[in-house]
Amino acid sequence: MGTVVPGRTQHLSCRSPGKPGNTRQEVSIASPAQGRVTRITDVAALAGVSPGTASKALNGTGSLREETRQRVREAAQQLGFTPDARARSLSSGRSYTVGLVTTDSSGRFSIPVMTGAEDALSAGELMLLLCDTRDDPLRERHYLTTLSARRVDGLIVTGRRSEPRPPVRADVPVVYAFNRSTDPGDTSVVVDDQAGAVQAVEHLLGLGRRRLVHLTGPDRHLSAQERAAGTVRAAGDALATEPLFGEWSERWGRQALDQALRRVPDLDAVVCGSDQIARGVCDRLRELGRSVPGDVAVTGFDNWSVMAEASRPPLTTVDLELTELGRRAAQLLIRAIDGDPQPGLLTMPTRLVARESTLGD
Amino acid sequence: MGTVVPGRTQHLSCRSPGKPGNTRQEVSIASPAQGRVTRITDVAALAGVSPGTASKALNGTGSLREETRQRVREAAQQLGFTPDARARSLSSGRSYTVGLVTTDSSGRFSIPVMTGAEDALSAGELMLLLCDTRDDPLRERHYLTTLSARRVDGLIVTGRRSEPRPPVRADVPVVYAFNRSTDPGDTSVVVDDQAGAVQAVEHLLGLGRRRLVHLTGPDRHLSAQERAAGTVRAAGDALATEPLFGEWSERWGRQALDQALRRVPDLDAVVCGSDQIARGVCDRLRELGRSVPGDVAVTGFDNWSVMAEASRPPLTTVDLELTELGRRAAQLLIRAIDGDPQPGLLTMPTRLVARESTLGD
Repeated sequence: MGTVVPGRTQHLSCRSPGKPGNTRQEVSIASPAQGRVTRITDVAALAGVSPGTASKALNGTGSLREETRQRVREAAQQLGFTPDARARSLSSGRSYTVGLVTTDSSGRFSIPVMTGAEDALSAGELMLLLCDTRDDPLRERHYLTTLSARRVDGLIVTGRRSEPRPPVRADVPVVYAFNRSTDPGDTSVVVDDQAGAVQAVEHLLGLGRRRLVHLTGPDRHLSAQERAAGTVRAAGDALATEPLFGEWSERWGRQALDQALRRVPDLDAVVCGSDQIARGVCDRLRELGRSVPGDVAVTGFDNWSVMAEASRPPLTTVDLELTELGRRAAQLLIRAIDGDPQPGLLTMPTRLVARESTLGD
Repeated sequence: MGTVVPGRTQHLSCRSPGKPGNTRQEVSIASPAQGRVTRITDVAALAGVSPGTASKALNGTGSLREETRQRVREAAQQLGFTPDARARSLSSGRSYTVGLVTTDSSGRFSIPVMTGAEDALSAGELMLLLCDTRDDPLRERHYLTTLSARRVDGLIVTGRRSEPRPPVRADVPVVYAFNRSTDPGDTSVVVDDQAGAVQAVEHLLGLGRRRLVHLTGPDRHLSAQERAAGTVRAAGDALATEPLFGEWSERWGRQALDQALRRVPDLDAVVCGSDQIARGVCDRLRELGRSVPGDVAVTGFDNWSVMAEASRPPLTTVDLELTELGRRAAQLLIRAIDGDPQPGLLTMPTRLVARESTLGD
């Protein structure tokens, strides 16, 4: 039987012949726009796919090409087809909802991850419930309880820092994005910070730079360690002094540049662990009358546009591709929800963005 | 009867004596943590409130003091009480879910609004479904359809710009946050940009500055117009030349400062329409050998920490209090959902944050 829910729109249900177990999937409602009843079979016909495929496409299940999902979604839009998601939920045991648990929804790292995840999930009609734990364990436990009560299909856990974190206790699939779980059996998707540093160094070596220094953030931060390790590995003898660890700030960039110049007066390139540090380095070099990149080439890390593009000169930097990382995490979560989990650590490639700070005008 | 849903936890239901209409509210589940059944009556007893109040507190309905909601939520946590939100939804006709429709989930303006809304809603066990329309009308329509299918209780519409936007078509309560609806009958919560500019100007006049200039963003932006209007009104004769409109960038700040100095060589204060403009002004003044604030005091707008605090010197600026704005918007939405809508435009106060760029060290 169908589900009658309070509301202005009229709700009907229609049993698809010979598929008694699937009636809830077939629930359709009067579209407010057109005032007529649409079935998923109509959507399938318009999209030129089988009803089963149309269901999969709208439910975000199965392994369909994105073009197919898109075509079905457009057909559903065009016909004003809106299944009652809650009835579908109770009938299928799925809520078509994913909890996004972030320690820091306002962080510039978790935002693009969130955006990418939201993009990949919405293509499959899954929606993101936003849970900002503010790094508060009590708040996190409260949210996990609430999400369990809502029978979310899965969780994406992200945060401000790339450090490993204790796994969350949940009885649904979980994917960690940007940060990673301390449990190697969990699925974590992280940035390949080492490879990113290698890209920056090889770019500088390719430009003929031979006296490199590396200025970066706190050595207690995994990302600082990884970026330093990649720099040391790729630079070899071209690294003129050991990496200088400090903080993720422009001020530290200015101070660290002075320290580096005392050790290596003839340095010709500065590999920075963040765009903020790189921007501080460029400002300080200008104040010292050294041209960038004429005398000294500078690279940043993060491709944080407000820093990288506002810097004088604009920064060559390493883009973390966080939106793609979030998209990938969501795709892995969908696979896990469909019963095909991919445990382990997935490191995502970065992308070098070359600008004036190494290339000149 | 109760709802049996696939999953590891055992679902039970218990009829509360004499309240047949309310059985779904009373559905309780075995807490994975404790393996025993908890009723909302247990929660009410522990929190020292009536079962009705406990329900209201957990459902985010009624007008309860936040302390009460908090106490009930803690009692529910302590007892591991988790009602099946979906069953509650079907029984109550509510989904306890709110759609957050943003044109720009990655914008530094919508993020704090989102965080504040999430904070206020989660206190009432309502959760936010994230919908990033990327300023794409098709995408927005798709989301509105999806949200309608999920029977969200209401919508919060926010965006990158403060400009009025056409109202969304929805048959649930809607509150516009940061941006506003072109329909004055809708509920919109916006920043009081004029009052913010007045705060900055009065601060400068209070410090004895008498030759002010105003450098701001594009005159087609409502926020630039409002901030300029507030500056002109508050500065009176102390405004040494008409406002200079340009772009929201550090580069424009540097250029505009040069233009302003040609018109007003003896200017002693620069009221900037954004922190980026103010940071460019500070950099340019330093290059020209003019001390900040000794020779020229500078104020920003937005209190965007990465700009305001990294600036040399750190900026006195106007905090938009966006988290509070988001919280207020969510509270108004909850009232509307409870049948008590508050149509009209609500302008939220800003807060002056004084730092070295006007006070010195």
